[in-house]
Amino acid sequence: MSFSATDHAMMARALTLAEQGRYTTTPNPRVGCVIVRDGEIVGEGWHVKAGTPHAERHALAQAGERARGATAYVTLEPCSHYGRTPPCAEGLIEAGVARVVAAMVDPFPAVSGKGLAMLREAGIAVEHGLMEAEARKVNKGFLSRVERGRPWLTLKMAATLDGKTALLNGVSQWITGPDARRDVHDMRAQSCAILTGSGTVLADDPSLTVREVETSRQPRRVLVDSALAVPVTAKLFNGEGGAVIVATAVADPARHEPYLSRGAEVWVLPGADGRVDLASLLARLATAGVGELMVEAGAGLNAALVEANLVDEAVLYLAPSFAGDAARGLFAWPALTSLADKREVRINAVRMIGTDLRLNLRFV
Amino acid sequence: MSFSATDHAMMARALTLAEQGRYTTTPNPRVGCVIVRDGEIVGEGWHVKAGTPHAERHALAQAGERARGATAYVTLEPCSHYGRTPPCAEGLIEAGVARVVAAMVDPFPAVSGKGLAMLREAGIAVEHGLMEAEARKVNKGFLSRVERGRPWLTLKMAATLDGKTALLNGVSQWITGPDARRDVHDMRAQSCAILTGSGTVLADDPSLTVREVETSRQPRRVLVDSALAVPVTAKLFNGEGGAVIVATAVADPARHEPYLSRGAEVWVLPGADGRVDLASLLARLATAGVGELMVEAGAGLNAALVEANLVDEAVLYLAPSFAGDAARGLFAWPALTSLADKREVRINAVRMIGTDLRLNLRFV
Repeated sequence: MSFSATDHAMMARALTLAEQGRYTTTPNPRVGCVIVRDGEIVGEGWHVKAGTPHAERHALAQAGERARGATAYVTLEPCSHYGRTPPCAEGLIEAGVARVVAAMVDPFPAVSGKGLAMLREAGIAVEHGLMEAEARKVNKGFLSRVERGRPWLTLKMAATLDGKTALLNGVSQWITGPDARRDVHDMRAQSCAILTGSGTVLADDPSLTVREVETSRQPRRVLVDSALAVPVTAKLFNGEGGAVIVATAVADPARHEPYLSRGAEVWVLPGADGRVDLASLLARLATAGVGELMVEAGAGLNAALVEANLVDEAVLYLAPSFAGDAARGLFAWPALTSLADKREVRINAVRMIGTDLRLNLRFV
Repeated sequence: MSFSATDHAMMARALTLAEQGRYTTTPNPRVGCVIVRDGEIVGEGWHVKAGTPHAERHALAQAGERARGATAYVTLEPCSHYGRTPPCAEGLIEAGVARVVAAMVDPFPAVSGKGLAMLREAGIAVEHGLMEAEARKVNKGFLSRVERGRPWLTLKMAATLDGKTALLNGVSQWITGPDARRDVHDMRAQSCAILTGSGTVLADDPSLTVREVETSRQPRRVLVDSALAVPVTAKLFNGEGGAVIVATAVADPARHEPYLSRGAEVWVLPGADGRVDLASLLARLATAGVGELMVEAGAGLNAALVEANLVDEAVLYLAPSFAGDAARGLFAWPALTSLADKREVRINAVRMIGTDLRLNLRFV
């Protein structure tokens, strides 16, 4: 199958539209749609929020009668099932489009392949696979959740140029500048949930809410607290921000009561070592609709997540300073005996953000 | 004084020419010269090597009779004294140039202001200060030596993204890739001398020679070895590469003998704490003609140099990996008690070099 330059340009536009939904569609995928007749865009749309119309519906409404005989470009296979909205495949058929180009087949079992089949049966020319790699990137969280049964996990870390996050005496603070801080809040706003550990909460008492950028929703917050060491007086439980899930190895319901009474959920997920089983936690988060999971934790939880091979990506902010070897570092691993054992990553992107450096890293 | 666009373009060209001497002019400054008549370049030259003709002589030779009535652009004030070559100011006067534009006055006492005065007295129109900041950068080593009485000091460091240089068990190796390694050799080739410490030599036995890039000279090598702990069987003393200077706190001439017999110089520079006094060492290196000093040392010497405020710049290579908190770091400082005490730097430049990141940092 080969696609024309126009096909590429229109799909690129549809992907840009899909991206507009990055703060709001969770747990749904981000989808964009462009309807083109005689080389002219007659309708555009993107999915804004679960429970509201899909991208195709917006684009068809804008196109009206001009959709007849047109080509529809969609970044994900149109749905074929009655969910909270009627199937988009049906809408495209009713509108009389002649051709549908999808960037990728929807891996979601209730849809996968069925939407495209429904269109074909109605006599529509159907193609897929155009700019699939780019389309997968837009929905890395949704795809990870559906295909791998766990969220796409991004570590957020901030350190000095010698990898230090805090002093040995426990003193810590934002070591990066205001631009990096705002960027962190923007990352939070795009995430389905934020995960942290008891050590970080006991040391810094963060609220992990989105405050420095505008947002129409607050991500859920997940606290890994194997021994239930965090008191309910922590800011996390003050009723502001997204729902709180406490993951623990403590099974005693009486000890859950204080958290439940503050409105938090308590998930009991004991691992072999008496700590929370992180793989089980991630599996359950995926089931609960968490696609993009951002981790803002300390050296202990970060190290455990990397060791369990659960980390996909990291954003590392490096402040223009050095703190010296006696300060605290990024990953509390046991001492390596060979340099071959160090954890390799790929540097995807580098840029200055204010006076700090921002690295995007891929764990492979 | 205001300069025209042509003046700027010609001085920029002269600075590019000056840069050609960056591997070879030590201990002399890098100087470029462009001679322009009726808007046309009639002569160009740069200083190649101490003891050979200066930039102005090359440019005048190329211009010949066309130098009469021309403008000469020089990146540094022309010399006025008889050194190993006759004074350039005299040459410019004899050639009959009408105007001389110098980027900066030479701070070297035997020249400073005298060259320009000699030209003025001969009736030549003389201006200076055009692109002075850029001209100072080209000769940061020469200027530091002459103006501050110590070399321009650049730390070379290589670490993982969490600031680790080696494992706790002492295992170390090049953790960065071949492109970064070649870049280090290129930095060496531009330096007047390379400084290292006994810890690094005992652990890694480096030769600190230029091997991965072409070079017509080898930089001097300076070993800080307060207690004379490095045996003369170390590669540093094998007779290849530049001259070796051993800086020590040990005054006993008998203990110097093995080093002297291997062709090394021994400088006794004891400090208050029984270690080599680093400020005295740098002062003596400046006297010995060392302008650009590159430091390839470990966390101990690096920390001491920063604490003594002797570091101007750093090149930090970060390999795309993490080694964990138990590995060795970049600066062996005592534990800070306040984050305000961390050492601030400025990130001057960032680029990828192979799969590694290369940061240029300014200590301020």
